[in-house]
Amino acid sequence: MGRIPIRHLSPQQPENLWPAKAYVGEVVPFAATVFKEGHDVLGVDVVLTTPRGVETVHRMRPGAPGTDRWHASAVVDESGEWTYRVSAWLDDWETWLHNAEIKIAAGVDVDLMLTMGAELLARAAAATPASTVLADAATRMASERLPVEARFSVATDARVAAALATAPLRSLITESGPRPIRVERERAGVGAWYEFFPRSEGAKQKKDGSWVSGTFRTAAKRLPAIASMGFDVVYIPPIHPIGTTNRKGPNNTLTAGPGDPGSPYGIGSADGGHDSIHPELGTEKDLAFFVRACTQSGLELAIDIALQASPDHPWVTEHPEWFTTLPDGTIAYAENPPKKYQDIYPLNFDNDPEGIYQEMLRIFRVWLGYGIKIFRVDNPHTKPLQFWERLIAEILDDDPDVIFLSEAFTRPAMMRSLAGVGFQQSYTYFTWRNTKVELEEYLVELSKETSDYLRPNLFVNTHDILPPYLQFGGQAAYKVRAAIAATASPTWGVYSGYELMENIARPGSEENIDNEKYEFKQRDWAAAEAEGRTLAPYLTLLNRIRAQHPALVQLRNLEVHWSDDDSILVFSKFIDGEFTASGESDAIIVVANVDPHSVRETTVHLDPTRFGVDPASLFDVTDLVTGETFTWGLDNFVRLDAFTEPAHILRVEFPKGTP
Amino acid sequence: MGRIPIRHLSPQQPENLWPAKAYVGEVVPFAATVFKEGHDVLGVDVVLTTPRGVETVHRMRPGAPGTDRWHASAVVDESGEWTYRVSAWLDDWETWLHNAEIKIAAGVDVDLMLTMGAELLARAAAATPASTVLADAATRMASERLPVEARFSVATDARVAAALATAPLRSLITESGPRPIRVERERAGVGAWYEFFPRSEGAKQKKDGSWVSGTFRTAAKRLPAIASMGFDVVYIPPIHPIGTTNRKGPNNTLTAGPGDPGSPYGIGSADGGHDSIHPELGTEKDLAFFVRACTQSGLELAIDIALQASPDHPWVTEHPEWFTTLPDGTIAYAENPPKKYQDIYPLNFDNDPEGIYQEMLRIFRVWLGYGIKIFRVDNPHTKPLQFWERLIAEILDDDPDVIFLSEAFTRPAMMRSLAGVGFQQSYTYFTWRNTKVELEEYLVELSKETSDYLRPNLFVNTHDILPPYLQFGGQAAYKVRAAIAATASPTWGVYSGYELMENIARPGSEENIDNEKYEFKQRDWAAAEAEGRTLAPYLTLLNRIRAQHPALVQLRNLEVHWSDDDSILVFSKFIDGEFTASGESDAIIVVANVDPHSVRETTVHLDPTRFGVDPASLFDVTDLVTGETFTWGLDNFVRLDAFTEPAHILRVEFPKGTP
Repeated sequence: MGRIPIRHLSPQQPENLWPAKAYVGEVVPFAATVFKEGHDVLGVDVVLTTPRGVETVHRMRPGAPGTDRWHASAVVDESGEWTYRVSAWLDDWETWLHNAEIKIAAGVDVDLMLTMGAELLARAAAATPASTVLADAATRMASERLPVEARFSVATDARVAAALATAPLRSLITESGPRPIRVERERAGVGAWYEFFPRSEGAKQKKDGSWVSGTFRTAAKRLPAIASMGFDVVYIPPIHPIGTTNRKGPNNTLTAGPGDPGSPYGIGSADGGHDSIHPELGTEKDLAFFVRACTQSGLELAIDIALQASPDHPWVTEHPEWFTTLPDGTIAYAENPPKKYQDIYPLNFDNDPEGIYQEMLRIFRVWLGYGIKIFRVDNPHTKPLQFWERLIAEILDDDPDVIFLSEAFTRPAMMRSLAGVGFQQSYTYFTWRNTKVELEEYLVELSKETSDYLRPNLFVNTHDILPPYLQFGGQAAYKVRAAIAATASPTWGVYSGYELMENIARPGSEENIDNEKYEFKQRDWAAAEAEGRTLAPYLTLLNRIRAQHPALVQLRNLEVHWSDDDSILVFSKFIDGEFTASGESDAIIVVANVDPHSVRETTVHLDPTRFGVDPASLFDVTDLVTGETFTWGLDNFVRLDAFTEPAHILRVEFPKGTP
Repeated sequence: MGRIPIRHLSPQQPENLWPAKAYVGEVVPFAATVFKEGHDVLGVDVVLTTPRGVETVHRMRPGAPGTDRWHASAVVDESGEWTYRVSAWLDDWETWLHNAEIKIAAGVDVDLMLTMGAELLARAAAATPASTVLADAATRMASERLPVEARFSVATDARVAAALATAPLRSLITESGPRPIRVERERAGVGAWYEFFPRSEGAKQKKDGSWVSGTFRTAAKRLPAIASMGFDVVYIPPIHPIGTTNRKGPNNTLTAGPGDPGSPYGIGSADGGHDSIHPELGTEKDLAFFVRACTQSGLELAIDIALQASPDHPWVTEHPEWFTTLPDGTIAYAENPPKKYQDIYPLNFDNDPEGIYQEMLRIFRVWLGYGIKIFRVDNPHTKPLQFWERLIAEILDDDPDVIFLSEAFTRPAMMRSLAGVGFQQSYTYFTWRNTKVELEEYLVELSKETSDYLRPNLFVNTHDILPPYLQFGGQAAYKVRAAIAATASPTWGVYSGYELMENIARPGSEENIDNEKYEFKQRDWAAAEAEGRTLAPYLTLLNRIRAQHPALVQLRNLEVHWSDDDSILVFSKFIDGEFTASGESDAIIVVANVDPHSVRETTVHLDPTRFGVDPASLFDVTDLVTGETFTWGLDNFVRLDAFTEPAHILRVEFPKGTP
């Protein structure tokens, strides 16, 4: 324990096992508990060190009274391994000033206090020889010929105050140890994702009912439309050859017909395994073409890595030791007793851990070789945590720009630990958090409690998830969920068909009927657009709002506000002008009616200090969806009609003079 | 990260900076987050290592579903530096059994499952050659001549189950690192304290109005009465010579008359400083006599160490460098600008830290030389935290039985950190937590959130604290506060006069009028007893109940229950028979009306699982205050009349068969 106790530094991962995380451009809130015996005035800095060793110093400010918490925010603007430490000291001048103001006013120890003040000024002057401000002030305060008021007035002279605020008179300087922050590229934290199945785009049904698969070349034609909706990342399911043994048929049936393409998660056939491309999608050249096409559309490609094998996978014959062989000599299928999934052999990571590790490393490197740098990892929670810890570290050692998205829908301990060991992004429980209270709690958890290490990618649907809220909520549900996802988190995503509001589930399930996972699916985008049956314009608007509002590409700045209605969710996001490229502050207030079947009228109660507005002032807000403007203050009437626009996305028009 | 992730071990101090704490006889709840990919059944142990290196293994049980938390409790029965670690493994037998039960019932893989089961039994049998139970079971399960039911029935045979529960079939064994627990002697955690001023006991006023001070010899006469009330520790304010310069007079006035004894916190005179005894209290021999008298009464003595000096302290001339000298050559008084406390010079720990440290160490050793092992430290939060960290560690190195009580009424960060660096006990905010909600929150904080390192000593009053609740609450307030303190915490205390319900405050203050700190105070204990004006019998009853109920000398077992009334506080304490000397479980339910001005009727809703009772059963409770018996269950009518008995202290009469 140092002379001035410094404890509970933040950001930090729980147990401090791995570095805290941030992304380029993120405004990181730093905090520490700093306290000392006695009544001396403390000063606290957080000192940031960039990967290249450059230090910047940020003065911390005291938080809520009694907590001894100190706070500062700073932007991390460069990827790599940063550190920060906290430096605390006694502020001798402020301590003196506090006492002098009281004692001189009370006529106590007047001469003594002025003598001490002059000594402090002289000490400060000696440290800043370039300026005479402090030396002059010291002389004046020491001058016994002057009246007391004149001598003491030096202490509150603006130039003196400025000089001593810039270079405080420190004593008992105490530093914490350094804490690591891994800063990753912006896309690790910010992006709008769009998932689609390349084989569906351009797929054609022949007269005999059989299909011709879409290919990388035909799928590439869809990319400009995706880009024009404002998405940043295109994510596609596994692109490897698909096994035929026990291949799944339409709607997850156990037997596929001869024309059924199979699930891309049934990986491996005579055509190859995880290092190969499904021949129906194309060749290595075609994939390279697709990667280039993405880049040309301003999109980045994410591919899906699912570490499991169909019975036809080359591993099965070449490395049977990577699976579980039963006493009867067969290889164990995936199962959830008594059900078996006979299209899949799970890997047994304990039979030959090193061999499996090296193979998986090799496979990731195959795809890295195409310039693909984002991997959506299927079910990482069914593989050892230590496997991911090692693999991600080794891949990032080669290329720190690689991004892993964890598709783990499991219990919090595993989900959080996967993020902890290195996954840059995580799927979340968002699709199952639909009520106001659920969303309030969950958005606070994601933006505050776990944001030092877990970055949520708020997918509104996936090819596996069509939640009841969307099945039965109509257009209002599709709009409000997209609005919340796109504004609450800097990373969000949709699976294709969302814009068409495809809401028919396979009976008894929470996934789409005729799931594209098991069959080709043709969508007539042009017809939907012509007939106005698409939310594409709304998604486009959301992504445009995100692009224009730096407050929305931050995670940790989400603040929940109050409304009197149990279905009106209110949150704000704010970024101070000191952290934006334009130098202007930006604030958005989202007010969402999460009941998709009603018109709601209520009062929204705001804490304007959360978005940089004086609580005493009125301010205008502009709805970025409708263009309407309202004058708002602490308490505001709101009417949200789910059947027209279920959510306000309000830009705060800062009153002149603030902030 | 090991093969099976093991995280968030508990007990642990925040940031793991210092060892977690426990005391001899404490039932320590251990917990860890343990999880693994897949659906295998896990087994988890906590392994305790005593200071002498003896290991004991305690099977952990899963906690609330979805949390991946595992729990076990164990008694630490020896003082010293313990460690614990968590060991996790796959339970191969339980994993097989879970799958086999489902699959064999469904007719899936029947032969395969029985073959695998037989292999597991054979493996287990090989590990326990002394018994044939498992070998026979393996043979039977492998026997293809038997019907399936007979083969499988082996798996649920009680002897087989017992053998495999005792020595599970483990694989992928993973161990956490060790975590430290400092186990201190019982009195560090358990005790009833009684404070009094020796100079008041036996003090006599002469005809001229002047006083003759009480002495260690006269004060010793009070000890049997204190012991007969069931107290364990006698605590006395500083025993050193008191300065005369700027000595405080009655009621904290600035000038003392010639006969005023002064505050014992104005330490140091021509008669000596912190290593000396006030001549009016007696000699070194008299103190030794007093220490012996305490021991003979079954009491342990705690003395008060207040590290500050009167202007007359020998340090002032011998070590002026230990104080702050002002530019005018004077030594700085203690002050809270513009007020000065001219009877006190605070030490400046930064002028000569090593010199001061060695002197303080010497002083503590002087009193340790008398066999005094408990120190109530006055205002430790006005000295550097690192000073206490070093001093306590060095004292405990010499004698681990020394106990320091922190008298820090300040903000949580400092209070908690003082406990963290080594103070075995802490004064708390208890005197200012009076409503039901305040008490519920605070007792949960003390018993759950901070109990790994901060042990509350719940004083109901002190010579400095007479809270409004006691000033205006009458006898009900005195009773209910004592009842709550004595039962909620294993350590509690009173300052003398509490039993006489001395409730008159100096106007505008929260301390007694004619505070004993500044004057002699005679109390006629015999008359109070004869006239029934004393709560001594109630305090005696409380201490007797504590002595008879092992559940009450645990801290971490406090559980809050619900009542429908906003002034009826309900909590229980429970200890399982496996942890008691008698082998019998013990449970106490406290129901307290914290409104001292009313009769309250309400319903108390209990969660009987918290005190070891099946929630489906009725059970009797006996009020240890009145002797009444009630039959209780989940929901119970309660009537508490503040003007007679404001609190039930109910012993649970366990229904036969539980627990």
